[in-house]
Amino acid sequence: MPAVVGAAQSPFGDRPETLKRLFVEAFEAAVSSVDEGLDPARIEEAYVGNLGVGGGQLGNVAALMTEVAGLEGVSVRRVEDACASSGFAFRDAVRAVESGGCDLTLAAGAEKMNDLERVHQRYWLGVSGDMEWERTAGATFAGTYALMAARHMADHGTTPEQLATVAVKNHDHGADNPKAQFQKRVDLETVLDSFVVADPLHLYDCCPTTDGAACAIVASDAVADELTDTPVRVAGAGAASDTLALHDRDSLTRLDATTDAGEQAFKQAGLSPTDVDVAELHDCFTIAEILALEDLGFSAKGEGGPFVEEVWEGDHLRFNPSGGLKAKGHPLGATGAGQIVELFDQLRGDAGPRQVDDAEVGLAHNVGGSGATCTVHVLTR
Amino acid sequence: MPAVVGAAQSPFGDRPETLKRLFVEAFEAAVSSVDEGLDPARIEEAYVGNLGVGGGQLGNVAALMTEVAGLEGVSVRRVEDACASSGFAFRDAVRAVESGGCDLTLAAGAEKMNDLERVHQRYWLGVSGDMEWERTAGATFAGTYALMAARHMADHGTTPEQLATVAVKNHDHGADNPKAQFQKRVDLETVLDSFVVADPLHLYDCCPTTDGAACAIVASDAVADELTDTPVRVAGAGAASDTLALHDRDSLTRLDATTDAGEQAFKQAGLSPTDVDVAELHDCFTIAEILALEDLGFSAKGEGGPFVEEVWEGDHLRFNPSGGLKAKGHPLGATGAGQIVELFDQLRGDAGPRQVDDAEVGLAHNVGGSGATCTVHVLTR
Repeated sequence: MPAVVGAAQSPFGDRPETLKRLFVEAFEAAVSSVDEGLDPARIEEAYVGNLGVGGGQLGNVAALMTEVAGLEGVSVRRVEDACASSGFAFRDAVRAVESGGCDLTLAAGAEKMNDLERVHQRYWLGVSGDMEWERTAGATFAGTYALMAARHMADHGTTPEQLATVAVKNHDHGADNPKAQFQKRVDLETVLDSFVVADPLHLYDCCPTTDGAACAIVASDAVADELTDTPVRVAGAGAASDTLALHDRDSLTRLDATTDAGEQAFKQAGLSPTDVDVAELHDCFTIAEILALEDLGFSAKGEGGPFVEEVWEGDHLRFNPSGGLKAKGHPLGATGAGQIVELFDQLRGDAGPRQVDDAEVGLAHNVGGSGATCTVHVLTR
Repeated sequence: MPAVVGAAQSPFGDRPETLKRLFVEAFEAAVSSVDEGLDPARIEEAYVGNLGVGGGQLGNVAALMTEVAGLEGVSVRRVEDACASSGFAFRDAVRAVESGGCDLTLAAGAEKMNDLERVHQRYWLGVSGDMEWERTAGATFAGTYALMAARHMADHGTTPEQLATVAVKNHDHGADNPKAQFQKRVDLETVLDSFVVADPLHLYDCCPTTDGAACAIVASDAVADELTDTPVRVAGAGAASDTLALHDRDSLTRLDATTDAGEQAFKQAGLSPTDVDVAELHDCFTIAEILALEDLGFSAKGEGGPFVEEVWEGDHLRFNPSGGLKAKGHPLGATGAGQIVELFDQLRGDAGPRQVDDAEVGLAHNVGGSGATCTVHVLTR
């Protein structure tokens, strides 16, 4: 099975650098992370996740990224599925290796959000949700996730404190991640006292606006063995889609794209949620992590709230040790690749103060829109 | 090797329908074109080329397309490389089948351009070229291709009449294509007398602004044999990239991405240009077809002008029998998939009055930007 042989990200945050500089920063770090060294010219295919929120170049931006990275002539395309863009870029980079047509591929993501005026940020972010019904009614992403949170509270008794616990946990992890946008801890009161963005979601229930890039280098079995003694294998992959608009779905408290993608990935890997030592989950809002914990089978449906409280009291680094979208940041098209970077470090024991002990199985969960698209990958050392 | 088992397109043109309707129209026609019938639910992966020029939905547009087409839950992503978007979508759909991970994939493209105001059309089209140097200097795509044409004339003596012959030929073919945007013949004088867009390119040297969608269904060997007695095999595939800006290239009269992609595709297929019975070439401007004829090896470098005159006097249906981007139209993200549709019909003998006799080998050539990205596919019956 294909393996990740190198992976790295730029620091995420409000970065003054251009999209090109952020990409090169991540790419060069990823190449440097290959144990035995790598001539970048050996990379045969590149998949670049980008939503095109900012950065000045929209069409052909993927070719611009590989051009500035020095990957002359490489076959490259942009992969876009809103916030799941580089989850799918990684999926397709793995598939390309599995096809036998190439031995080394690049799965990347890059996004520049903070050079836009706020009105444009809102516009661009909005266009990944259902434009026809939700956006014309004024429902932003915070609005759609607030609907899910409200329904989850009504059906399952989930509390604002449980939502806030996700933020407290992920900020705690981000505080130990030098690449995170927010490297500061927050307490429950700070989260609960922050202003309401879309009831019941407070400011600290929401991920930030982020610039950043991330790269993962995928290799065939044979080439992986040549390049490193500690490859991170791609044991399972799943992907699915759902309706864009919430009103077309059976449930407001379950993302079918997540359940489908998770089942596929676990089945291919021959593993189950209890086997997962470390998971990077798509916590664009705190309710999203609770839904993911349930939809992926870590907790029973409806019990994600109490489950998160148990996690925080116990083995809390198991979920979003990087800080997640919430604290590490959420540069839309770079987020999925950024999750692979964290798992690469965790499964090789290189995660420093946020290292999960004896991490052998990792899971990455990347969602586009309000759940319209999703990828899940199971990685093993 | 994977095969195309069904393919169809919507009529291209200035269409009042929404992007969603255009996509469904092409998808249903593609499903209907499968000889033994196809339950669409069997499709496992979808790749949708779209530049996002218009249509109201930008992020997650690929998931919206499969949603309206009834492909519930399917793994889907948007593939974007400017005007080569669905050439790469097709490449990746083929790769997915080759990976062994799935048996049936959809390669599609859709674009809605005519619902934008003209100022937005110019903006959106511009963003696929180099933004930093060319666009800030006012160089549009017509401008960059005009530079290539002027250099070709200076270096090789190519004449305005030779450029115009490409338009005359492709309009002649479009006149016999009920799916073409322009179904009318033009003569040399009309082309040469039309107003100058960017010297030396006249109005009739340029492709139009087009709405449309196209779909191709790709199957593994085993499933192809189940679904049809006349599969169209994907014998060779190539893809490459180049710098976005012309000033960074060695030559203004050669697209290295085309030469590289062409060599790869011919090598994999074990075929050469003389084996090609029918080719769909990326003639966004008349000079682009002349460059493609040279860069793919149909003519020697510099002799594309006289070569096109010979073609027009002789076996002219060999190149762009559909009418090409020039007359069939150029709905950016749908163009590459539309080329596959034409080859599917040609290689199965279903192309009606524009049928190439005994067509056994076809080639599709799809370019993004001014040559920054390119795919070439060789198909055989």
